[in-house]
Amino acid sequence: MNNNCIWCNITESEKKYLLVNSRYWNVFLADKQDYIGRCILVLKRHCESLAQLNGEEWAELKSLVEKLEVVITKSLGANMFNWSCLMNDFYKSETPNPHLHIHVRPRYNSPITINGKTYNDEEYAHHYDNHKQNKLTESEKETIYNLIKEVLDV
Amino acid sequence: MNNNCIWCNITESEKKYLLVNSRYWNVFLADKQDYIGRCILVLKRHCESLAQLNGEEWAELKSLVEKLEVVITKSLGANMFNWSCLMNDFYKSETPNPHLHIHVRPRYNSPITINGKTYNDEEYAHHYDNHKQNKLTESEKETIYNLIKEVLDV
Repeated sequence: MNNNCIWCNITESEKKYLLVNSRYWNVFLADKQDYIGRCILVLKRHCESLAQLNGEEWAELKSLVEKLEVVITKSLGANMFNWSCLMNDFYKSETPNPHLHIHVRPRYNSPITINGKTYNDEEYAHHYDNHKQNKLTESEKETIYNLIKEVLDV
Repeated sequence: MNNNCIWCNITESEKKYLLVNSRYWNVFLADKQDYIGRCILVLKRHCESLAQLNGEEWAELKSLVEKLEVVITKSLGANMFNWSCLMNDFYKSETPNPHLHIHVRPRYNSPITINGKTYNDEEYAHHYDNHKQNKLTESEKETIYNLIKEVLDV
């Protein structure tokens, strides 16, 4: 627990889109749904880098990678995934205080329809567009959350 | 071994920039040195995704993440790292045949000097620029390779 870290001080009300609460990790549906079903895996412990994960945290990460790929494929129809651990934003500070998190962007070779609206992965088979805006309304985000959660909880 | 896969059929002459040859992984200094010291970790076995790594491959990946972060920090002065597992290019094909590989881009908050020439990480603390061109001549790339290799082999 680090007093100056946003992830160490996340409040219950900010956990609305928590998908998985495992021993060492929280998985949230990301605020920015530029790629439908995008999630963020946040280590519960304050830790600076991938290299500093301990053996148990690393092992649990693997089981989460497997679970998320299966569940998002089943629930949303993603057919491949972009994983990244970047941490750049923390280094904008003069005294960086990084907290390990990992992004996963599901990618789609076919359109996906949510609440009657159809979305395409325009950059499919290319690098994700880092400047892409959020595509979903709040209620569509809730739908996506419920679709993933439903398969997760089976 | 997959007959139609470039990584399964890599030739000895293409291994000039091989840095680490471990039990399950090869680590190469990347052809494109857009970020100085950029490496690519290639699984020796043909495997489609991060989720499909087995336990031993996953454990060895962790030890390589640790080793590369320490060695590239010592040899080149990187102060943080961007890790990614994307695999997009394979999906341009109508019959994708992905072979698991992971990118690591070292990032620098200070200039780095190679053979008397100075390089800056212009996007430091921001997302890497995916359209950035290779910055190094062949001889500078050899210098970088030797600097990393020297620390690796200690």
